[in-house]
Amino acid sequence: MSRVPGMYGDVKLIAGTACPDLANEISAYLSEKCGEEVPLLERDITTFDNGNIYVRLTESVRGQDVYIIQTMARPVNDTIMELLITLDAVRRDSAGRITAVIPYFAYSRSDKKDLPRTPITARLLADMIQVAGADRYVTVDLHAGQIQGFFTIPGDHLTARYLLCEHVSENLSLDNLVVVTVDLGFAKGGRNWAHGLGLPLALIEKERVGTKADALSLVGNVEGKNVLLVDDEVDTAGSLHKAVKLLKNRGAQNITVAFTHAVFSGKAHRRLAKMQEQVDEFIFTNTLPIGKDMMLPNMTILSVADLLGEVIRRSHLGLSVGKMFDE
Amino acid sequence: MSRVPGMYGDVKLIAGTACPDLANEISAYLSEKCGEEVPLLERDITTFDNGNIYVRLTESVRGQDVYIIQTMARPVNDTIMELLITLDAVRRDSAGRITAVIPYFAYSRSDKKDLPRTPITARLLADMIQVAGADRYVTVDLHAGQIQGFFTIPGDHLTARYLLCEHVSENLSLDNLVVVTVDLGFAKGGRNWAHGLGLPLALIEKERVGTKADALSLVGNVEGKNVLLVDDEVDTAGSLHKAVKLLKNRGAQNITVAFTHAVFSGKAHRRLAKMQEQVDEFIFTNTLPIGKDMMLPNMTILSVADLLGEVIRRSHLGLSVGKMFDE
Amino acid sequence: MSRVPGMYGDVKLIAGTACPDLANEISAYLSEKCGEEVPLLERDITTFDNGNIYVRLTESVRGQDVYIIQTMARPVNDTIMELLITLDAVRRDSAGRITAVIPYFAYSRSDKKDLPRTPITARLLADMIQVAGADRYVTVDLHAGQIQGFFTIPGDHLTARYLLCEHVSENLSLDNLVVVTVDLGFAKGGRNWAHGLGLPLALIEKERVGTKADALSLVGNVEGKNVLLVDDEVDTAGSLHKAVKLLKNRGAQNITVAFTHAVFSGKAHRRLAKMQEQVDEFIFTNTLPIGKDMMLPNMTILSVADLLGEVIRRSHLGLSVGKMFDE
Amino acid sequence: MSRVPGMYGDVKLIAGTACPDLANEISAYLSEKCGEEVPLLERDITTFDNGNIYVRLTESVRGQDVYIIQTMARPVNDTIMELLITLDAVRRDSAGRITAVIPYFAYSRSDKKDLPRTPITARLLADMIQVAGADRYVTVDLHAGQIQGFFTIPGDHLTARYLLCEHVSENLSLDNLVVVTVDLGFAKGGRNWAHGLGLPLALIEKERVGTKADALSLVGNVEGKNVLLVDDEVDTAGSLHKAVKLLKNRGAQNITVAFTHAVFSGKAHRRLAKMQEQVDEFIFTNTLPIGKDMMLPNMTILSVADLLGEVIRRSHLGLSVGKMFDE
Amino acid sequence: MSRVPGMYGDVKLIAGTACPDLANEISAYLSEKCGEEVPLLERDITTFDNGNIYVRLTESVRGQDVYIIQTMARPVNDTIMELLITLDAVRRDSAGRITAVIPYFAYSRSDKKDLPRTPITARLLADMIQVAGADRYVTVDLHAGQIQGFFTIPGDHLTARYLLCEHVSENLSLDNLVVVTVDLGFAKGGRNWAHGLGLPLALIEKERVGTKADALSLVGNVEGKNVLLVDDEVDTAGSLHKAVKLLKNRGAQNITVAFTHAVFSGKAHRRLAKMQEQVDEFIFTNTLPIGKDMMLPNMTILSVADLLGEVIRRSHLGLSVGKMFDE
Amino acid sequence: MSRVPGMYGDVKLIAGTACPDLANEISAYLSEKCGEEVPLLERDITTFDNGNIYVRLTESVRGQDVYIIQTMARPVNDTIMELLITLDAVRRDSAGRITAVIPYFAYSRSDKKDLPRTPITARLLADMIQVAGADRYVTVDLHAGQIQGFFTIPGDHLTARYLLCEHVSENLSLDNLVVVTVDLGFAKGGRNWAHGLGLPLALIEKERVGTKADALSLVGNVEGKNVLLVDDEVDTAGSLHKAVKLLKNRGAQNITVAFTHAVFSGKAHRRLAKMQEQVDEFIFTNTLPIGKDMMLPNMTILSVADLLGEVIRRSHLGLSVGKMFDE
Repeated sequence: MSRVPGMYGDVKLIAGTACPDLANEISAYLSEKCGEEVPLLERDITTFDNGNIYVRLTESVRGQDVYIIQTMARPVNDTIMELLITLDAVRRDSAGRITAVIPYFAYSRSDKKDLPRTPITARLLADMIQVAGADRYVTVDLHAGQIQGFFTIPGDHLTARYLLCEHVSENLSLDNLVVVTVDLGFAKGGRNWAHGLGLPLALIEKERVGTKADALSLVGNVEGKNVLLVDDEVDTAGSLHKAVKLLKNRGAQNITVAFTHAVFSGKAHRRLAKMQEQVDEFIFTNTLPIGKDMMLPNMTILSVADLLGEVIRRSHLGLSVGKMFDE
Repeated sequence: MSRVPGMYGDVKLIAGTACPDLANEISAYLSEKCGEEVPLLERDITTFDNGNIYVRLTESVRGQDVYIIQTMARPVNDTIMELLITLDAVRRDSAGRITAVIPYFAYSRSDKKDLPRTPITARLLADMIQVAGADRYVTVDLHAGQIQGFFTIPGDHLTARYLLCEHVSENLSLDNLVVVTVDLGFAKGGRNWAHGLGLPLALIEKERVGTKADALSLVGNVEGKNVLLVDDEVDTAGSLHKAVKLLKNRGAQNITVAFTHAVFSGKAHRRLAKMQEQVDEFIFTNTLPIGKDMMLPNMTILSVADLLGEVIRRSHLGLSVGKMFDE
Repeated sequence: MSRVPGMYGDVKLIAGTACPDLANEISAYLSEKCGEEVPLLERDITTFDNGNIYVRLTESVRGQDVYIIQTMARPVNDTIMELLITLDAVRRDSAGRITAVIPYFAYSRSDKKDLPRTPITARLLADMIQVAGADRYVTVDLHAGQIQGFFTIPGDHLTARYLLCEHVSENLSLDNLVVVTVDLGFAKGGRNWAHGLGLPLALIEKERVGTKADALSLVGNVEGKNVLLVDDEVDTAGSLHKAVKLLKNRGAQNITVAFTHAVFSGKAHRRLAKMQEQVDEFIFTNTLPIGKDMMLPNMTILSVADLLGEVIRRSHLGLSVGKMFDE
Repeated sequence: MSRVPGMYGDVKLIAGTACPDLANEISAYLSEKCGEEVPLLERDITTFDNGNIYVRLTESVRGQDVYIIQTMARPVNDTIMELLITLDAVRRDSAGRITAVIPYFAYSRSDKKDLPRTPITARLLADMIQVAGADRYVTVDLHAGQIQGFFTIPGDHLTARYLLCEHVSENLSLDNLVVVTVDLGFAKGGRNWAHGLGLPLALIEKERVGTKADALSLVGNVEGKNVLLVDDEVDTAGSLHKAVKLLKNRGAQNITVAFTHAVFSGKAHRRLAKMQEQVDEFIFTNTLPIGKDMMLPNMTILSVADLLGEVIRRSHLGLSVGKMFDE
Repeated sequence: MSRVPGMYGDVKLIAGTACPDLANEISAYLSEKCGEEVPLLERDITTFDNGNIYVRLTESVRGQDVYIIQTMARPVNDTIMELLITLDAVRRDSAGRITAVIPYFAYSRSDKKDLPRTPITARLLADMIQVAGADRYVTVDLHAGQIQGFFTIPGDHLTARYLLCEHVSENLSLDNLVVVTVDLGFAKGGRNWAHGLGLPLALIEKERVGTKADALSLVGNVEGKNVLLVDDEVDTAGSLHKAVKLLKNRGAQNITVAFTHAVFSGKAHRRLAKMQEQVDEFIFTNTLPIGKDMMLPNMTILSVADLLGEVIRRSHLGLSVGKMFDE
Repeated sequence: MSRVPGMYGDVKLIAGTACPDLANEISAYLSEKCGEEVPLLERDITTFDNGNIYVRLTESVRGQDVYIIQTMARPVNDTIMELLITLDAVRRDSAGRITAVIPYFAYSRSDKKDLPRTPITARLLADMIQVAGADRYVTVDLHAGQIQGFFTIPGDHLTARYLLCEHVSENLSLDNLVVVTVDLGFAKGGRNWAHGLGLPLALIEKERVGTKADALSLVGNVEGKNVLLVDDEVDTAGSLHKAVKLLKNRGAQNITVAFTHAVFSGKAHRRLAKMQEQVDEFIFTNTLPIGKDMMLPNMTILSVADLLGEVIRRSHLGLSVGKMFDE
């Protein structure tokens, strides 16, 4: 990659073990864009029998502009520790600048004390990333935008919404379509979707029956409409499953589900499979790798590789990232 | 105040100039509760002609458990600087422990980067409070709970919702009442209100007309119902004014407005006065002092003094604060 | 501005709202000196009705060498907060290096604990500037040179004395001239003036009458001489006014007053106007902007723009700043 | 536990999930020693389906002297994250003082850069423990004593050698016994054993055959002697297995193996079982819990509970810990 | 020493090797004042042949309120390192609170950058004291009060002026006496002396002859008067010697010299001896120990032991230190 | 030195006063290697009569890549302070990047708490170097590799073993040669020597006789063999002297002694002179300068200048340092 004088050495991409395919796609994007090879750096990442992770770079990054690509996929604590240890190795090799590229940021629901005597793990994570040596971070669709403020170091908080929206615009009729959020926490996210596509909005909320907040209710109207059900991530798919049932009960026609992060833990696969008939399409990105056994026929995976690759390119060259987007 | 051995010296209350009445009430609560005088400390706070603020404590706080009570009222930058300078003076007088009691935390809408090249001022503020010497903080109804995570130091983030709810329960019929939030950002806050009172929820959102997001629309239904319109703060009352009009248009009956922080800036007073006829009651707290000229006949101000006083007492004695609330 | 490879991107000048004219002059100096436009960056700085300041850069500074020009003019707490918030915005936009250019550093008389239980606000300010993201600072004629040591980050502490001296040399006869300082705190500053011009020195000190230290007395002799009365700043002009009266009483002939910072608060204007007859000329710089209504016929304002511009240029190019001066 | 005035509130013990039995023993020790119950605090530690760990204390620790007991057992990254998250929860609950009690400190072999471009994970871990909120740490037999210097916070680095020595003295004849270390890295540790028991020392080292350092050789003599083979930990038992074979080849009689930490990963169990005939007794401690399926008839487990309990007691009361040992 | 519940354990005094006599006097003061022994702690401080300093406390300070008494006497770098190493040892022994009592703070003339490319060593020293573990500091008559602002930790900056003034008042006739400062840097210090005793002030300044600033001149008048010549410290006594000569030339009668710190380096002794005839009395304190060979018949040494002892007592008990002085 | 765009300005070498010859050799190496002069920077380092060290750079290092070469020779506390003060001066002159090149790192035996209530001075030193402004460090043969982990900043920890080995290989017959370490602390170091040269290993350990650990014993066999006695440093040469006697007693033939750091304190010279007959050659490096009076005919000093020079060159150009070595 042709380097601009005055910036931070050459781009060096280091892939953790959590999302090798995405890392390769980013490398390919940069190589094509720059007209020369921008390969993934050789490194040795091993987990010993005792569970300790060992990282060794087999190539020097001294004085270079390093991007460590590691998503916080399951097992999250292992992928997190791997990221931190890699950061430490890169820092101690006297890198010029270190950016942690974290497509999915785990623990992001632990972003405040909702109850007494609880931690704020997302802040802890931000501190740990800084203490391990990161100078910058890049991430996608944080559960709460405020997590940016958990970092002292600068970063690029990207959204995959434009990518998802574009796919929706190209493949769905917007007539008679209403945006619905799976829960109130994504209310503002839902509004951004609705504004972006020029659609109305409805919201699903948890009702409290007695002391349990379990049943869902709908705020707004979907009767006879097609629904674009949106969220930032799908984890166990429990809320999503209930939401789909509720929408059908309330007279929704076709349902499309769109979200950024496919966490897909616990009973997710079983539930998604059950929803096959009610949901026309699940649209999401590859910020988290999903196993082939998780795939269903009506799933569409959009890649964030070009998005991340372009941000890396601009970051390296000192070009505006904000200009990439319809601000 | 009778001190528990092993804690941090005696309680010392220091009032900034931003909320003297509230500070006096807190002092009164503690004095009564503890059976001995817990006065506000003598201090000299002056603003010189050149605009520089000068603080001097006329009594020592060496080794004591100090609580500085300063809300971030207008002029906010002055009240903030006064807080910071007082923290520095207290720290440099070798206080045992320092808690910043900040009933209203300003800049809390600058809690993330919504647009490129913007600051996160709430985080900056948290850093400044720490760098000035605070060991702990106490605050009420942050615009976003995540701001807790902007602090490294521990703190007590309280809500005035219980206080406001209690007043509502005692003074309003809950039959035919629906909770409505002024905007989507308070969606989860609204749900807490709705759950707390066992009421349904509706939400107001900003519509985008062309490129402007200005008109409001209602998600949910208020036709023929009484409305409890809730928010965390009322600033210029612009959104509130539009919300009230919209609700009336949609057939709402009686409207009560409840919120924690009475910022009341710009055209707020004029707008609130105009709403007199549509709104039965404005209920809010004294986290911010309001001038007599701002008062309207249908305003009810509830005091957070006992809440803050009790938290100070428990904090000093090493007792649980969480137990004060229906967790 | 032609960039030297290996330095920190391009020069980006950002002006706060406190000294727009000076910022423009600096931009003009750099543009001329470098043979290409070095404009002030587009930015949006707004104060909301609630008093919160909002900053947005409308152009990216990613990887660039940024200089934020903001003097601490009145209202000081607002200009300080604006500086800090701008620093945060620039830092979070991944600037390459950030220099806070602060022609006048406020709170600099709060530089030590003279009395028990007081703050050291100048240190607090230095900490806040660092915590907000500055990598370096540039300032002019600190009230005490030790304030440099309040910073951990490096900085350039400049003096306007050479500029003022030059004007004096060119416009005043040095025969029969004596340098007098307005108070003892500027004794060493006065000596620097005296040595620079090869003149004798006298000092004014506060006498203590009973318990009040109010009256002034003169150490040294001005009988029949012309006087160059010097100080670092003129604030309310109270001491200056008394000093002028004392000098006249002691037989001084023509009096010229020279100082760097025109704070001019409180009764300053009234007093300066009264001194019109006794003082031939007030010479000072534009480190602080002064309103037209403050101007008097015998005031001469010298610009520090070239000084600051040249320091920015050298700092950017990695050239010695020290060599600019007769060390 | 009767509290000394002036210390840090009451003792609060919090057990992580990694070593519940040891934590209970410590609680029992303290309860007996203090004549009143010192229970483990109620807390809720859950791992969600997505792998995120959630911690909630169900009892307040405000202003108290908290000891979090968590060993770094497998899966190490999970137990480490659990420790860190618990620290954050305790800190944010305004604990008076927080001590991380870590019987086994993982990653301690990653304590220096032996090769270029490697991390120093043990230092990273120390930083993370501090950033998460620990004020102090307690640990046992670090692989390298220098790891103490990785912490800025004070700590108590204990050794189980006295405990193990005592068992050896009471159960083995010291006549004709020689201390042998499994590798050169424990040479000084071996000398401490030898000095403590008044025995001679021999050492096993890795030979380099061609480019591989694989075969072992013995420095010193064990012909016809009984051997006490010592190390700090047994991990996969690979080196140990070879060492035992070598010793037998060199004519050693009875072999006893003593070490502190039973990591027992990978093929450890199979190898230990194979050594049954050559080794009379494996003596080690419960700094790490081992499953029943790992147990062999000739294993003796000594508990460090009283050691840790007594250190907690003394730390709480401000008594010397050093005096517990024959310095 | 009777301890107040809620403070920081017992007082523990640790003396470095730089001022053993003063440390013993402080111990004696506290013992008498408190009615029980407050001894100096047993410790082992050794300098090895290789110049490395070794410190070991032979008694535990766990959880206690520790005061390390070490002045920065010559060889300064050794006494500084000894202080820092002792701080580290005390911190790592889990002391409750650590105060560095530094009667004389070296390098205090390196408090700003007077010339380009120079250090600010006094700030560096403050940082080092903090990084080594001090929670507080106590010191006497800093060369510049601003050095207080070099510390983030709180401290007590005391002055010996009251002590010296009292001696002067009791032993000298104030009639016909004028206070003179040795150089302009002590101008404000001189004014404090003058105000304290109700005397007039004169100042000595360095004249610049050609390019050298070597000769002295007097600002003010001493003809026929007795002189009290004051400064913060006497180092090589070069300026003092010249000052005395100048004063005699200008017709001064009796001269008394008063200062806090007897650095007495280089040719100091020879010069002081030479001044014997012109100077009636040298009055100074024991913040620095002076050898018997340095003593002259007209020297009076006042002890700061009671001052420091009382500050330690008040600091320990959480009592005001400010109230000790006529503020 | 030809600079790579994107790195950190030009190389600037600054020599402290502790190893001027080595610094000159490094300058010569770089000058030759780069085909242009890389001189030592002009600087003024003075020790005043009062023992305070003063540093002034007479040339600017603004924006440059600075290497401060200062070994921790005796008087160690002075050379350490000089290094720290120089770091501060360089940092405050806005250097681009600062590397502390410390051929010999003192206090490295104080690297852990072996006994209660002792410091870890090597960690303190690392903290001080960082706080004074170093961005990186370069050092040679630390007493314990773990000291690398005492630094947060990256560094290059080099070994002189390759240099020494090469000399041994070229000058000694490896037949019949055995590597022996002076004490167990260097056991792993000894193994590296043995592996490097393909030789067997023996070790000397301290025996405990009664309560004193004074006598030495040999683990392994040297009968009739030539011995290469190795260590990291020779300080007072006490252990070395005893080791040589022991080896002779055990039948060793020719003895060669090799080590990196010639501390040579206390009785070292006398002892080395006494060993003249038993030792064929003392081989060591110039990481510490030794006086001519210390030299003996059978001493060979190898220079680390090329090693350090090459590391500086590679560090400056962003080239791998690891590739210099047979990893």
